[in-house]
Amino acid sequence: MIVLREPNEMRRWSFERRREGKTIGFVPTMGALHEGHASLMREAGRKNDVAVASIFVNPTQFGPNEDFNKYPRMFDADCAMARECGVVAVYAPTAGMMYPPGYATTVSVARLTEGLCGRSRPGHFSGVTTVVAKLFNAVMPHRAYFGQKDAQQCAVIRRMARDLDTGVEIVEMPIVREPDGLAMSSRNAYLSADERAKALALSRALFHAQSLLENGRRDAREIVRAVRERLDGIEADYVELVDAENLEPVNEVSGCVVLAVAARVGATRLIDNIKYCAPAASAGPHTEESAK
Amino acid sequence: MIVLREPNEMRRWSFERRREGKTIGFVPTMGALHEGHASLMREAGRKNDVAVASIFVNPTQFGPNEDFNKYPRMFDADCAMARECGVVAVYAPTAGMMYPPGYATTVSVARLTEGLCGRSRPGHFSGVTTVVAKLFNAVMPHRAYFGQKDAQQCAVIRRMARDLDTGVEIVEMPIVREPDGLAMSSRNAYLSADERAKALALSRALFHAQSLLENGRRDAREIVRAVRERLDGIEADYVELVDAENLEPVNEVSGCVVLAVAARVGATRLIDNIKYCAPAASAGPHTEESAK
Repeated sequence: MIVLREPNEMRRWSFERRREGKTIGFVPTMGALHEGHASLMREAGRKNDVAVASIFVNPTQFGPNEDFNKYPRMFDADCAMARECGVVAVYAPTAGMMYPPGYATTVSVARLTEGLCGRSRPGHFSGVTTVVAKLFNAVMPHRAYFGQKDAQQCAVIRRMARDLDTGVEIVEMPIVREPDGLAMSSRNAYLSADERAKALALSRALFHAQSLLENGRRDAREIVRAVRERLDGIEADYVELVDAENLEPVNEVSGCVVLAVAARVGATRLIDNIKYCAPAASAGPHTEESAK
Repeated sequence: MIVLREPNEMRRWSFERRREGKTIGFVPTMGALHEGHASLMREAGRKNDVAVASIFVNPTQFGPNEDFNKYPRMFDADCAMARECGVVAVYAPTAGMMYPPGYATTVSVARLTEGLCGRSRPGHFSGVTTVVAKLFNAVMPHRAYFGQKDAQQCAVIRRMARDLDTGVEIVEMPIVREPDGLAMSSRNAYLSADERAKALALSRALFHAQSLLENGRRDAREIVRAVRERLDGIEADYVELVDAENLEPVNEVSGCVVLAVAARVGATRLIDNIKYCAPAASAGPHTEESAK
């Protein structure tokens, strides 16, 4: 496995792979890799000729009072895990290379970034789309893999990748959970034993809502209320039921929706969600369409 | 010469050229091609294995009261000129392909876009940087060619191309002028014979300032005043002497500067500029440095 440090070096490596006719699967990460990342890296290797992962704790997607400084950094362990998952190149630039003096460019996505996490984290998503646009230009992947845990991020990046004609296919992979249900996150490392136990309320509440949806409940207010009631006193930043594509809140579930929650457990902000696609509404037994 | 209409089609074509080991020179245009564009296309062909030009009148870089609707469109003549200049592929997407329903992404550059034309054309430069980022992703050039006439645009695009790790080398080519000095522009077609004669004051005033600079005058206020006095009653939007790299106004000329003017002649907004690099200040005969 090779470690590349500079955008030009990375781009040269990727163009060589492309000249060899190889497809490139890419997993952008901030390191502190866990089984969620592992599932992305393995899939990138399975579905492409070569898998590349980036490890870069991107300062511009953290707010001034957020956890940039304490975000877990464990480069050697991350590289070991990446290698085990079949990654052949790690791209690990420094912040000075990514944002040199005089740096002035931002890539931003309107609308999709306004609700959910965008409301309490101004500037977060433009930090994300800017760094991902830069990573795509350096890595030149055919496909890029993101976890559904960051559902809004997935939707925003898919929009950006399409809008800017990057040609990169965005692949969203299911959330990987601990055996007890907690969604894997690098930030879980911040939780005390007590907080860790409390945090379980998030996934429990979402699983309960899932069973309501599977039993045919369609009223968004009722479902959101059911989640809120099961948070066991955890302070929710939001609980929202939104359209899976445009992230607009829905009143009545139809098509594919995301039920998303963000909450603070102690000092740690956690997010989790479930995706649900309602079966196409039955048109009744007598319609012309159903007979065709 | 081939005409390509879709981003995916364009990207495929360019990746094939790259797989053949060819370098790609790119000239983005809004059509209505003149000798200025021709100089860029010829240079792109001379310095690269293949030359690509785009023809796209980009709606997002026009303000609501600007000339998007009347901007000259002459696709067949443009293609003929491109072919003559050695262009092998024209990329001509439609606005619907570039900005499909739901489009939401903007690429913007801070600071450099605030002065000069940025002051009177809010949103213009983010329209430019967004479309150029898209064109770069589709065309994947090694080098892209821009005319110095749009000096601010050149500086802004160079910043964007570097900041986003595009790997595209931005080449700025000298202004091409009519025999009487008027800078070539697609918008010159708007001028009546009378306006055409009046418009000459712009280049005349700049050439006078050039001779002041070459004669050692270094006071920005004096030089700007000399230009203003020679505009023969044309209403200037701005006359500014700025640093060639960061476009900040200078008081005293040193290093490379741009003297830029924008003015309305009748209903037509014209821009022009000269670039001047002051010789390194003489260190005097007795300094240690000069002896080394």
